[in-house]
Amino acid sequence: MRDVGIGLIGSGFMGKAHALAFAAAATTFDLPIRPRYVVLADIDSAMASAAAARLGFARSTGDWRTLVADPAVELVDITAPNALHEEMALAAIAAGKHVYCEKPLAATAAAAERMARAARSAGRITQVGFNYLKNPIIALARSIIAKGEIGDVVGFRGIHAEGYMADPATPWSWRHDPAGGGGAIADLGSHIIAMARFLVGPIAALTAQMSTVVKRRPVARGSAETRPVAVDDQAQLLVRFASGATGTIEASWIAPGRTMQLAFEITGTQGSLAFTQERFNELQLYRAGGPAGRQGFTTITAGPEHDPYGAFCPAPGHQLGFNDLKTIEVRDLLLAIGGAGAGGPDFHEGWQIQRVVDAAILSARERRWIEID
Amino acid sequence: MRDVGIGLIGSGFMGKAHALAFAAAATTFDLPIRPRYVVLADIDSAMASAAAARLGFARSTGDWRTLVADPAVELVDITAPNALHEEMALAAIAAGKHVYCEKPLAATAAAAERMARAARSAGRITQVGFNYLKNPIIALARSIIAKGEIGDVVGFRGIHAEGYMADPATPWSWRHDPAGGGGAIADLGSHIIAMARFLVGPIAALTAQMSTVVKRRPVARGSAETRPVAVDDQAQLLVRFASGATGTIEASWIAPGRTMQLAFEITGTQGSLAFTQERFNELQLYRAGGPAGRQGFTTITAGPEHDPYGAFCPAPGHQLGFNDLKTIEVRDLLLAIGGAGAGGPDFHEGWQIQRVVDAAILSARERRWIEID
Amino acid sequence: MRDVGIGLIGSGFMGKAHALAFAAAATTFDLPIRPRYVVLADIDSAMASAAAARLGFARSTGDWRTLVADPAVELVDITAPNALHEEMALAAIAAGKHVYCEKPLAATAAAAERMARAARSAGRITQVGFNYLKNPIIALARSIIAKGEIGDVVGFRGIHAEGYMADPATPWSWRHDPAGGGGAIADLGSHIIAMARFLVGPIAALTAQMSTVVKRRPVARGSAETRPVAVDDQAQLLVRFASGATGTIEASWIAPGRTMQLAFEITGTQGSLAFTQERFNELQLYRAGGPAGRQGFTTITAGPEHDPYGAFCPAPGHQLGFNDLKTIEVRDLLLAIGGAGAGGPDFHEGWQIQRVVDAAILSARERRWIEID
Amino acid sequence: MRDVGIGLIGSGFMGKAHALAFAAAATTFDLPIRPRYVVLADIDSAMASAAAARLGFARSTGDWRTLVADPAVELVDITAPNALHEEMALAAIAAGKHVYCEKPLAATAAAAERMARAARSAGRITQVGFNYLKNPIIALARSIIAKGEIGDVVGFRGIHAEGYMADPATPWSWRHDPAGGGGAIADLGSHIIAMARFLVGPIAALTAQMSTVVKRRPVARGSAETRPVAVDDQAQLLVRFASGATGTIEASWIAPGRTMQLAFEITGTQGSLAFTQERFNELQLYRAGGPAGRQGFTTITAGPEHDPYGAFCPAPGHQLGFNDLKTIEVRDLLLAIGGAGAGGPDFHEGWQIQRVVDAAILSARERRWIEID
Repeated sequence: MRDVGIGLIGSGFMGKAHALAFAAAATTFDLPIRPRYVVLADIDSAMASAAAARLGFARSTGDWRTLVADPAVELVDITAPNALHEEMALAAIAAGKHVYCEKPLAATAAAAERMARAARSAGRITQVGFNYLKNPIIALARSIIAKGEIGDVVGFRGIHAEGYMADPATPWSWRHDPAGGGGAIADLGSHIIAMARFLVGPIAALTAQMSTVVKRRPVARGSAETRPVAVDDQAQLLVRFASGATGTIEASWIAPGRTMQLAFEITGTQGSLAFTQERFNELQLYRAGGPAGRQGFTTITAGPEHDPYGAFCPAPGHQLGFNDLKTIEVRDLLLAIGGAGAGGPDFHEGWQIQRVVDAAILSARERRWIEID
Repeated sequence: MRDVGIGLIGSGFMGKAHALAFAAAATTFDLPIRPRYVVLADIDSAMASAAAARLGFARSTGDWRTLVADPAVELVDITAPNALHEEMALAAIAAGKHVYCEKPLAATAAAAERMARAARSAGRITQVGFNYLKNPIIALARSIIAKGEIGDVVGFRGIHAEGYMADPATPWSWRHDPAGGGGAIADLGSHIIAMARFLVGPIAALTAQMSTVVKRRPVARGSAETRPVAVDDQAQLLVRFASGATGTIEASWIAPGRTMQLAFEITGTQGSLAFTQERFNELQLYRAGGPAGRQGFTTITAGPEHDPYGAFCPAPGHQLGFNDLKTIEVRDLLLAIGGAGAGGPDFHEGWQIQRVVDAAILSARERRWIEID
Repeated sequence: MRDVGIGLIGSGFMGKAHALAFAAAATTFDLPIRPRYVVLADIDSAMASAAAARLGFARSTGDWRTLVADPAVELVDITAPNALHEEMALAAIAAGKHVYCEKPLAATAAAAERMARAARSAGRITQVGFNYLKNPIIALARSIIAKGEIGDVVGFRGIHAEGYMADPATPWSWRHDPAGGGGAIADLGSHIIAMARFLVGPIAALTAQMSTVVKRRPVARGSAETRPVAVDDQAQLLVRFASGATGTIEASWIAPGRTMQLAFEITGTQGSLAFTQERFNELQLYRAGGPAGRQGFTTITAGPEHDPYGAFCPAPGHQLGFNDLKTIEVRDLLLAIGGAGAGGPDFHEGWQIQRVVDAAILSARERRWIEID
Repeated sequence: MRDVGIGLIGSGFMGKAHALAFAAAATTFDLPIRPRYVVLADIDSAMASAAAARLGFARSTGDWRTLVADPAVELVDITAPNALHEEMALAAIAAGKHVYCEKPLAATAAAAERMARAARSAGRITQVGFNYLKNPIIALARSIIAKGEIGDVVGFRGIHAEGYMADPATPWSWRHDPAGGGGAIADLGSHIIAMARFLVGPIAALTAQMSTVVKRRPVARGSAETRPVAVDDQAQLLVRFASGATGTIEASWIAPGRTMQLAFEITGTQGSLAFTQERFNELQLYRAGGPAGRQGFTTITAGPEHDPYGAFCPAPGHQLGFNDLKTIEVRDLLLAIGGAGAGGPDFHEGWQIQRVVDAAILSARERRWIEID
């Protein structure tokens, strides 16, 4: 077994989630590679120091460049705001590091492309944090499709809706700035686009509409001063996949009451699948051709047959949680670094997802279909 | 109390359903008007005669024109195939009759317009059989919206998917002929369009894509001879309502395992609604602003508070069935004829719905947004 | 086709429901026998007269004995309060009539036994209104069990809970008088006992506990005067079936929010069934031995494969309602009178159900197991 | 911050789960006490050594007595088979250690009592692994009850059913030996009994029936040699709580298709709760007195308002998993050791739970009510 030195940038919620995931991956799985917690960077060096102590990192720094330059760091893990992803990742790649980056990969497809190309040129392992793809029940869905159990996929109906921006009193933030690459379509839409690509393949064309429902937001909670919101609150897309399948994709962050409606229905010629992240240990499967009067959707509950559920629990139905998906993501990354797996989604995939986001924004502006080669 | 003489065209399933609904309406509700079963017409006069006897009609005929000309008939009830609706309805209106017609009203918006204008000129009462609108729980949804309980409606996500055409061995029929006005978009899409208009109002613009998955079908079950299918199996629309709300509308008749997925989710600025006809006695309601830690979607079950559920059953949760919705539809028609209610959806509304269907077909063909004035 | 003259006792909700069911049965099914609406009796002769006119009965009377004596009446249909069932039914049987009686059959098993024996001696057709047994999806459950699709039944977990007595301000009524034969155990428990017997067979032994939560109720809504409640609000039973299967049966009419929780889970050696009347067009089926990683409960939705659903609607998933179950019940009764079916549950079965109710009451009082031969 | 030295007995699934939970607790929460991984014991010293390396323990041993005697060990964590709990725990307490023990605490209430009394005499902190009680949504349920939001609790309907013993080919094991303290009633029933006590309080009396459906099992998978099963496969209890509430409690390990049906419904005088561990991030709440026509069960999804969900994820609806509940359990234990919390359920509570199990077994044998003081 060999160690891989981790340099973690960011000590907020996602930084903590990553640190926990590295520890959990090492304990949960029997891996050929072991994380070593080398250095933690945060713009606030006091916070960096405190977080390093709590999360078990050997050193801390207030300057991420120090972290990137650290020879003991083999993997740079970026949980900083989106706008910083490109600079950090390019520097890390240039320093010969592998890079793990939270989603969305970048504010624009152009930036994502630069990151993907740099990583490929340098031969570095990369991974983007689309952790919902790591769900064993999603792996099952993909396997069901790949084995032809529902025939050919002809339809996809996907959405990611939450309600965290529904309240107009929620203040303006960097998420409302188009420099960040889009609103709901980037923040949530990227998840359902990633899911669509993972399950049905590349999107060849789309047309979209977007709307900004809360047109101005206070600069701070309770403030009378407001700033305009220049990104979408809701986005709706018609999509055509390269396979010929057609469908819809939607994103909303103003859906009251929705907390995790990352959901899809897939129509095949011989069956159907339905899923929602609200109950992400379950998959609904319908297969044509069963006995008359006994047909219907079957609720499959995640269990040890659905790898790698069994590493977490030997009994079915006990349920994985959000952080367990992150743990699987980290396992895949460590396996890829150890040469024992494909990892992914990597920067190339992150770029392709961002291309769909960018095309949707363009389509909505120009009110026309956009082809994506 | 006065009688209204009924002339029923068609003795198939829908004819029987209408006859039963008239009888049930008279027994279930305390109405100022009572149906009298005058004459039943079917192209097969022997079937007409047998059906008349079973369903309690005084006379039968093999010629619908005889029925229309019968002076004892005040209301002509059309359950014949769609392609015949226009001719029958215009003749009935010309003869001074009120007209009750199954959906979709006509094969094209132009035909529907002629029917609507004729009825208006003649001052006749009309009704189209969009019975899902008659559900007390849908009346509740409309009332919740009208009272502002979920704020302003800003999003609509609707679908009507079933699986009855999923099997490619299902033979070609008049439903696969574009002369009938479209495939899934007309047969099922008209229901969810009707629902969208009922709840959110007129649709001002749309863009659509449609696909035909089963490109040829046998002329009869098991036959090697096939005919091309020239209508859509799946349709997906982006819509913008006159109110400014945006959304998606979908239709599919090739969705394996779906039997009645007429479903919608409505996003308001202060709450959300979710519904599926698969469990049509239930409405999911979320309202912003409840106590912290106690919020969530509430499952409202139809009961006597939801008029006219109480006419069917004095206790909540006992559930209405498909035919009960038809009974309410007939009640509304009889009340309108008796001058005691507005009835509806009438031919004008049937026309407006068909305009959306036609616009979707045009949009899919020309791959562009269509404005609907 | 021959007619059967109906004499209906009672013009309240259940009387109306019966009248509607007779009309609907005649229209919905192709029956060898046709109901004729001869006479309607109600203790209030003005109400009787008005109801007869509205429901299409030829005559009315304020005296049920006149109805029973009417030679044109072949079937006496009793929807009067439970306490009157025995006297009416015995008189009807003595007059040579068939008898249709609402549930529960009688206040005590002894009374029910007298009714059942009289009917058997006289060779009359009888039926008791346990309409939930008439659900096509319950017929499916019974068939699944009978065919051994879930192996041998070894466990039953049943309940019927509603909330209509949860409010202590709901006034005292005859239902709170033990002369009526019990509280929740009789009013609701009889339904789940009927279901248990229908699906799993006779109950051989039981032990029970009962509690009265609302100990006094006002004599009228808002009144300060109260009367003691001497029947159970909640009953819980352990049961052992003659087959050796074991289980629990519960009844409650003080369950806030429950409107129709007539629910069961059945454990077989090779599979399981789950059902709730809250969604009574659905049955959950699990069968052992499916492919690894694809197993789960399948939601079967009622459709034409589940007889007699198809008589109501040719398409699956459109859903039957409460009153449709009553229509099937009446069909079965008419077929039995016509010599074309077994009908049931008859007075004998009504008696057996009441024996379980009585045994539960005795067991709760004496705190011991009771064997039922 | 101070360290607490951990000695872990057992390197199987549960041992690994505990190790992971200690690590996760330290990372997830801001605790005044930090686990130090001192020594891991397993009867197979090679396995102990391997597990110690993988899980980060400094030392390993093949003899648990060495672990107990280790002065660096402050907390002995027992994940060995039930039959060994008593001896290990008593030795640990005698050595002055705190003890953390998997459930059920012991094979008999007498043994559990000895353990509880020893711990109390020695003033040691103890905890039993009833991790389902640690669910934030269960804490919510308890809080709702405690605050009177559903009035007084009058009914409880609980079950824990799974299907892992449904297949008669599953071999005989120590779980089928009554020396282990009972079958389904001990293995699963103890969870729902713990839940009932946690939410509704002590059980004052019960009557039970138990059945053994699979009467003999092979000594090994595929073997023709069988051994008799002398414990229950299914247990059903009527219970009366000290509060006067009544209810049922059931356990089954032969329920095909059930993977985690630890479920309950609670009837209050002003509302109801419903829960199933199959969807353990959700609680169904009904409260009397809402606006007419808007009432129903509300599905509350776990979120940051439900402590300590927020420590795992700052956004609602993202869901905790099975292992997260274990993490909370360990946090509570560490806080108790650190003097900053009550911890629990402790050995005293484990004893009380076992008393109910023992009373159920006795009641089923003697077919009578048993009072529990």
